[in-house]
Amino acid sequence: MRDAYHEELDSIGDSLVEMARLAGSAIGRATTAILDSDLKLAESVIEADQKVDELQHDLEARAIALLARQQPVATDLRIVVTSLRMSADLERSGDLAQHVAKLARLRFPQRAVPQDLHATILEMGQLAQRLMAKAAEVIITKDVDLAMQLEQDDDEIDQLHRTLFQHLIDDRWKHGIETAVDVTLLGRYYERYADHAVAVAKRVVYLVTGEHADELQADIKPVTGVEGA
Amino acid sequence: MRDAYHEELDSIGDSLVEMARLAGSAIGRATTAILDSDLKLAESVIEADQKVDELQHDLEARAIALLARQQPVATDLRIVVTSLRMSADLERSGDLAQHVAKLARLRFPQRAVPQDLHATILEMGQLAQRLMAKAAEVIITKDVDLAMQLEQDDDEIDQLHRTLFQHLIDDRWKHGIETAVDVTLLGRYYERYADHAVAVAKRVVYLVTGEHADELQADIKPVTGVEGA
Repeated sequence: MRDAYHEELDSIGDSLVEMARLAGSAIGRATTAILDSDLKLAESVIEADQKVDELQHDLEARAIALLARQQPVATDLRIVVTSLRMSADLERSGDLAQHVAKLARLRFPQRAVPQDLHATILEMGQLAQRLMAKAAEVIITKDVDLAMQLEQDDDEIDQLHRTLFQHLIDDRWKHGIETAVDVTLLGRYYERYADHAVAVAKRVVYLVTGEHADELQADIKPVTGVEGA
Repeated sequence: MRDAYHEELDSIGDSLVEMARLAGSAIGRATTAILDSDLKLAESVIEADQKVDELQHDLEARAIALLARQQPVATDLRIVVTSLRMSADLERSGDLAQHVAKLARLRFPQRAVPQDLHATILEMGQLAQRLMAKAAEVIITKDVDLAMQLEQDDDEIDQLHRTLFQHLIDDRWKHGIETAVDVTLLGRYYERYADHAVAVAKRVVYLVTGEHADELQADIKPVTGVEGA
């Protein structure tokens, strides 16, 4: 019995890694799509999100079946419950990548991102993708030090997010309101995406150490200004 | 044993209702705080969110203990797992109400919402609070018809959200970029809040009927324009 159990548990872990891989690829491609105004690429990202959703449904069904059949306790139980939560984070990350792609599609053939913010958005997209790659690695390796690194990367995203807002409220902003709205939402999507990647890593830390990396306040951050959370 | 089990299960249900009550009160008070630029009220909302977070942690611990001790199967198991997910939705709703309150605090003594959008934001806030009150009622009554009503209310929020964006991109917008950014984020907060309330109701439907109200696509909606999701 225990062997079947561990096989099932491994396969749930594999699904989580696959979800992270897809969500990471999605945010990378969505960023390219919005910067290049590439409609085809945007549509492929929008479509591909279905695969992440399917993986989540499937994972959920298997996790519940595993709870019912094997009735794990203690750490094993915690792993299954935590996997359910991680899959929700990853599913949501996929949605956020899809939101970026939808914005690219909505503005096509225009570009949603003005040239002087191109570098900032590119960097946010790359960081987000890297965060998710590291989150996948943390799931595989259970490396607590690597998990802690994600918080630093997340600080970088927050810094870029602030840069974005400074651009927006600068008197010299000349791109009009619609673009300001787009950029505001984009910044929010990347920030939330990063939060979910960090949350995944933190949940692994909790499984390994039994301690919350912190009180998971990552998503209660200041959004529009320097002023505090 | 089964009696203890049902008592524990009931107490988890009670916590969910209490979380919904607090999250509902929070969005109502946060809306008042941002419309009136009431710093004290904003700070009370920000502080009160801790209570929602505590309830979630506590609920999670009790749900896991219940799984370990009672090892429920079939429907009972599904109820516990679904309760965990609902608590995550409710915790996140509390965060979003807190975001509204933080924006009120950030802009104090200015008002974040210009007078001509006052009515729209008020209505979004009231609808959001009503959605959460209904979600709580759905948890208590398991009323599938009522749960379905939430989707209609959510459509109203989406309609208000579109109204908000039409104001923003109207050539006559005269409130500047910073206010446009604030209003964009506010709209997003209310929309996401409503999505979580709807998700809670849908999870109850799933428990009762065994069928997904739909594929839970509620949070993959168009955000910035009329163009499709």
